[in-house]
Amino acid sequence: LDHSEEMNGAGNLMDFLDEPLPDVGTYEDFHTIDWLREKSRDTDRHRKITNRSKESIWEFVKSLLDAWSGWVVMLLIGLLSGTLAGVIDLAVDWMTDLKEGVCLSAFWYSHEQCCWTSNETTFADRDKCPQWQKWAELMTGHTESAGAYVLNYFLYVLWALFFSFLAVSLVRVFAPYACGSGIPEIKTILSGFIIRGYLGKWTLLIKTVTLVLAVSSGLSLGKEGPLVHVACCCGNLFCSLFSKYSKNEGKRREVLSAAAAAGVSVAFGAPIGGVLFSLEEVSYYFPLKTLWRSFFAALVAAFTLRSINPFGNNRLVLFYVEYHTPWYMAELVPFILLGVFGGLWGTLFIRGNIAWCRRRKTTQLGKYPVLEVIVVTGITAILAFPNPYTRRSTSELISELFNDCGALESSQLCDYINNPNMSRPEDDIPDRPAGPGVYMALWQLALALIFKIVITIFTFGMKIPSGLFIPSMAVGAIAGRIVGIAVEQMAYHHHDWIIFKNWCRPGADCVTPGLYAMVGAAACLGGVTRMTVSLVVIMFELTGGLEYIVPLMAAAVTSKWVADAFGKEGIYEAHIRLNGYPYLDQDEFTHRTLATDVMRPRRNEPPLSVLTQDSTTVEDVETLIKETDYNGFPVVVSRESERLIGFVQRRDLILAIKNARQKQDGVVSNSVVYFTEDAPQLPASNPQPLKLRRILNLSPFTVTDHTPMETVVDIFRKLGLRQCLVTRSGRLLGIITKKDVLRHMAQMMNQDPESIMFN
Amino acid sequence: LDHSEEMNGAGNLMDFLDEPLPDVGTYEDFHTIDWLREKSRDTDRHRKITNRSKESIWEFVKSLLDAWSGWVVMLLIGLLSGTLAGVIDLAVDWMTDLKEGVCLSAFWYSHEQCCWTSNETTFADRDKCPQWQKWAELMTGHTESAGAYVLNYFLYVLWALFFSFLAVSLVRVFAPYACGSGIPEIKTILSGFIIRGYLGKWTLLIKTVTLVLAVSSGLSLGKEGPLVHVACCCGNLFCSLFSKYSKNEGKRREVLSAAAAAGVSVAFGAPIGGVLFSLEEVSYYFPLKTLWRSFFAALVAAFTLRSINPFGNNRLVLFYVEYHTPWYMAELVPFILLGVFGGLWGTLFIRGNIAWCRRRKTTQLGKYPVLEVIVVTGITAILAFPNPYTRRSTSELISELFNDCGALESSQLCDYINNPNMSRPEDDIPDRPAGPGVYMALWQLALALIFKIVITIFTFGMKIPSGLFIPSMAVGAIAGRIVGIAVEQMAYHHHDWIIFKNWCRPGADCVTPGLYAMVGAAACLGGVTRMTVSLVVIMFELTGGLEYIVPLMAAAVTSKWVADAFGKEGIYEAHIRLNGYPYLDQDEFTHRTLATDVMRPRRNEPPLSVLTQDSTTVEDVETLIKETDYNGFPVVVSRESERLIGFVQRRDLILAIKNARQKQDGVVSNSVVYFTEDAPQLPASNPQPLKLRRILNLSPFTVTDHTPMETVVDIFRKLGLRQCLVTRSGRLLGIITKKDVLRHMAQMMNQDPESIMFN
Repeated sequence: LDHSEEMNGAGNLMDFLDEPLPDVGTYEDFHTIDWLREKSRDTDRHRKITNRSKESIWEFVKSLLDAWSGWVVMLLIGLLSGTLAGVIDLAVDWMTDLKEGVCLSAFWYSHEQCCWTSNETTFADRDKCPQWQKWAELMTGHTESAGAYVLNYFLYVLWALFFSFLAVSLVRVFAPYACGSGIPEIKTILSGFIIRGYLGKWTLLIKTVTLVLAVSSGLSLGKEGPLVHVACCCGNLFCSLFSKYSKNEGKRREVLSAAAAAGVSVAFGAPIGGVLFSLEEVSYYFPLKTLWRSFFAALVAAFTLRSINPFGNNRLVLFYVEYHTPWYMAELVPFILLGVFGGLWGTLFIRGNIAWCRRRKTTQLGKYPVLEVIVVTGITAILAFPNPYTRRSTSELISELFNDCGALESSQLCDYINNPNMSRPEDDIPDRPAGPGVYMALWQLALALIFKIVITIFTFGMKIPSGLFIPSMAVGAIAGRIVGIAVEQMAYHHHDWIIFKNWCRPGADCVTPGLYAMVGAAACLGGVTRMTVSLVVIMFELTGGLEYIVPLMAAAVTSKWVADAFGKEGIYEAHIRLNGYPYLDQDEFTHRTLATDVMRPRRNEPPLSVLTQDSTTVEDVETLIKETDYNGFPVVVSRESERLIGFVQRRDLILAIKNARQKQDGVVSNSVVYFTEDAPQLPASNPQPLKLRRILNLSPFTVTDHTPMETVVDIFRKLGLRQCLVTRSGRLLGIITKKDVLRHMAQMMNQDPESIMFN
Repeated sequence: LDHSEEMNGAGNLMDFLDEPLPDVGTYEDFHTIDWLREKSRDTDRHRKITNRSKESIWEFVKSLLDAWSGWVVMLLIGLLSGTLAGVIDLAVDWMTDLKEGVCLSAFWYSHEQCCWTSNETTFADRDKCPQWQKWAELMTGHTESAGAYVLNYFLYVLWALFFSFLAVSLVRVFAPYACGSGIPEIKTILSGFIIRGYLGKWTLLIKTVTLVLAVSSGLSLGKEGPLVHVACCCGNLFCSLFSKYSKNEGKRREVLSAAAAAGVSVAFGAPIGGVLFSLEEVSYYFPLKTLWRSFFAALVAAFTLRSINPFGNNRLVLFYVEYHTPWYMAELVPFILLGVFGGLWGTLFIRGNIAWCRRRKTTQLGKYPVLEVIVVTGITAILAFPNPYTRRSTSELISELFNDCGALESSQLCDYINNPNMSRPEDDIPDRPAGPGVYMALWQLALALIFKIVITIFTFGMKIPSGLFIPSMAVGAIAGRIVGIAVEQMAYHHHDWIIFKNWCRPGADCVTPGLYAMVGAAACLGGVTRMTVSLVVIMFELTGGLEYIVPLMAAAVTSKWVADAFGKEGIYEAHIRLNGYPYLDQDEFTHRTLATDVMRPRRNEPPLSVLTQDSTTVEDVETLIKETDYNGFPVVVSRESERLIGFVQRRDLILAIKNARQKQDGVVSNSVVYFTEDAPQLPASNPQPLKLRRILNLSPFTVTDHTPMETVVDIFRKLGLRQCLVTRSGRLLGIITKKDVLRHMAQMMNQDPESIMFN
């Protein structure tokens, strides 16, 4: 971010009767957009089309097409992002299984599909069929020997390394922007920042491919965050079809907000949650029209994904569950404890991950991204293979942890002793003593928990696509399931305790460990991202029952409060700050500073570079442009009175003078430049003056020097300004840019407010 | 709305070191609030508490309590509005049945409760039991004779008249604000307008009581809109417990937004839909913190209502349904047709109702509100009794129309011929020829439709609490059910048509008339209110399946487009405009006017009343206050330079001068008033000057005269200004108030934009 960004011009609201110059209205890379200007340009465009539509049938049809283009873009986004999500799901499914074995009947089948299509599969042994062979079996013919285990282990690690190497190499070579989750950058872009190529076609292609590779490699990362990025790339792609969106950065961002909703919609199968996520977490400027369109895009995406049906169960996510048992008031205690755990996990993760990412940025470590990915993948694969809960994909793990132990469940976690002879005669409570499998599973889950916690901190932020929803949910689900089983067994062994007596009535299951896993997952996700409403709604859409909203809310609220007590920032805000993006967040600014404390020039700095309305020469202007790199200059009546009349953009000034020098006779270095309606009275000997009024913005935004900064921040945020001029009694004093505001806010946050307020 | 409102003062951001005067910061009735000032005051308060919290444990606890008060208020709102909704439901249930008969075992039982508790009730004849007696039966002993029918008819009308007379009298005598749905006024209040007493305790009490009476009287109105008003009254009530909310009009409105969500949540049993309704339809300023709290309040309200369980079915609304049959693509055609119907109904209703309300306002009609209610109730009751579909309560009607005809359904609408002998051998499609009951029902429904359409137009807007959600839904549900049965019978009689062949496969129900009713209800509700996302989400929560979102969306979108084609305004906006409330809606302002076209004084008006910073005397000020009724005055350096230095409120000026005259020696009529830091140099003979800097707002909001009005409108809307000063090159030219903006917008909408732009 170079210095030139800081003084970029204000809303370019020109004289209405003049046509704007050709190149006006585009922004340079890493610059901030001016929302007011974009909005005003769109209104102009709209006005033109409306006026023209009365002229002929053809123009009327064109105006209708223009009005409908928003819906068309939404439809296309929904279709493409739904399709991509489906393809990613299918590919991940296949490649994850490829690490362990291959389907002989058709190599492109995943383990499940392979055995599903086989005639020799029985229901009890759903995952065993002759067509599916592990690598060792295929190569050596043995299945159970130690040698086969070692060979499978070795090939598992090798495939993982291969996938992740391929992923990081593709990212490095073709699309460096495809790494990470993308949500911090999308937040920044939506707040009005330009990062060229971040949502480009290459990023879309490479991110889709490498996301499959990264997830398949078994690294502790998820596809949910990157799917939002992929959906936004789709949005950006379809924007280019319509000049309404491609030529207006403000309108483009409306489309991107909707695309983000579509991304979450397919990631979690939660269209309403997606819209709320976009509203709560991602978007900056979210007019109601966008809400409705986002909803449409999210629904189209969800239905596209459903018609692809990647999991073969008519659900959009692997871990969709329906519980049918109620929960009891007393269970709120463990739920709230899970919330506390989620908050602590959030704090630990954010601090650890940010510390590690800062180290990556500042030390030699950052120079070897490929090596880093290889090493982390190697460690992950080596540690993951021996434990059945980490060997499989994280989504499958979450799915198993969420699941209630039905009658047909064959999982180790459902190894309860169901022998009716053991039922004690004195009472009728459902006997569910844990069998050895459950105790075994508890140990393995505890190890998996520690492993996931540590490795996720190092994984998020590497140079491959990586989301943190799934690992966070996994951590929470493991913890939740452990707590759930503990409560369940306590209720079984101490069912005479008063607390369990009313609760575990005869003939009913009294504890659902799967529900605990879901609550834990929500708590951990909440601790990391600080989502609230959207989190609860997403979870609600995953379970499909209002019944469980209270446990989910209790956990989400607790987790947010605990995490907030250790630091207000969620992981996305932390990454935004780490990367220094100019993001003005929605938090209240509560310090007692005034505009005069923030504006520049400061007391000991040289005066503000200004132009006068009718006494600057072309040469003066050229010198000013050469010597400064501000992106715009205020225009005043005269240097003595300093009364502000407007603001002119550097870019426009350069273009206008170049244009005049080429085309307008008599314009020489000595010519006076004037911004007034009429030419100034000049001696006859002077060369012809140059009128530049049409590039002057006559309505620059001003505040007085006594305006409290909290108001200024509010104005910047709500109106999306790039800069604002500061006046006192009509005299121009200085300028405040968005960057000045951000710098000031950062300053105030680190310092004791009192020390600044009263000295 | 008197003239004095128009020039109310700007953000009162005073010198920080001075304590504000005691009465500053309150608003008069029918005045507009200044959002920036309220926000700034809250920040100040928060800052004080934070600073003090470090001083002692007690102060720390107080700061914690302050931080938690928002959640406490939400909890209380949820509890109270849930309870009130439950009580209203129970009371309406009882009183509606009271029109027809009474329960002998306990007179406070409704028909259903009466027979439910009776031992003599069989499942087949659920609604017949000896304890429940119709009035004629009780009085004469006859049940089936013509005389009994006439007696029942007569008493039905009499009870209806009694209830509605009681309702309108209570409203007239105790709380005139309790009439109507309240949503237009709440929208206006939330946008920053003061209507004292509108959300007061009396309104709460009377509206709750009269709502029960009005709904029970059988008038074509619903309780949903008024429930939002009731919930907002609860919100306002609990605000008064905490000075944080009671003393800050901005913070109070955050609570009210959440209360509105709680109101919809209990009205429809849809907490998420409630939050979105508040966001989309009602609220003006909706920060994310409010979103989360609204959700909490909505959930608490829903769970409170559920624990009251007014309908005895564990559901929050009578017309909750779960469908289990899929829908087919071809059905989108009738769904879209229902959407068109909904749009046309919306247009007809809005135009008709507004025309009627205007007539009521402008003619003699408005002088006899009690008579009007009596007459409409009489007509409604007389016409409603003979038709079984209009005699019962509208919610029950909707519930029956939504319901799928299960095996146990005894409704006339489910009178299908299920004789297996009739099944034709050539195919297996489910035989559902309509029986005579269905044809009878169709006729009755058609009559009910016409009746509801006409009577609702005249009912909404009378001086009793009246919501239009339920009547609108009823109109749509009737139309939908009729269409549904028509399609169903067509599919039965022409199952060899190519369109039905793929669709009505053997062994499956192919058409669900109940779903058509629900789609029709959504379409009609959408046409009247122009809700979109919240409508679909509410309906989604009513059906509990993502499956039906596409039909609902198709109908809602069509209905909105059709209705928008005839006029952009929904019923609430139309009523806001009818009543002349100063509501700045979210629509884009697209005209090419400038600030200079809107500001006052206009060309031929006297100059702006201003004060000078150090040359006005106390007498001058007093004269100005006496002669004008502006609510504030700009302060300039001098009348010659006209450079703006600040803005001072009329109210503050009066207080300050009164104060100084009483307490400060030497302040006489001749004293100079000054707003500068230091006293002006005056001859020794002059009396002591009066310093008024501390009531001067040093950061008034300014725009230049060339600022396009679309930007000005945007600023007013987003920052919630009351007024804005207009300058050119630092000189004060004029002032634009919120009312000027509204007037200008209204003007532009009625006139051809071209005619104003270029002359």
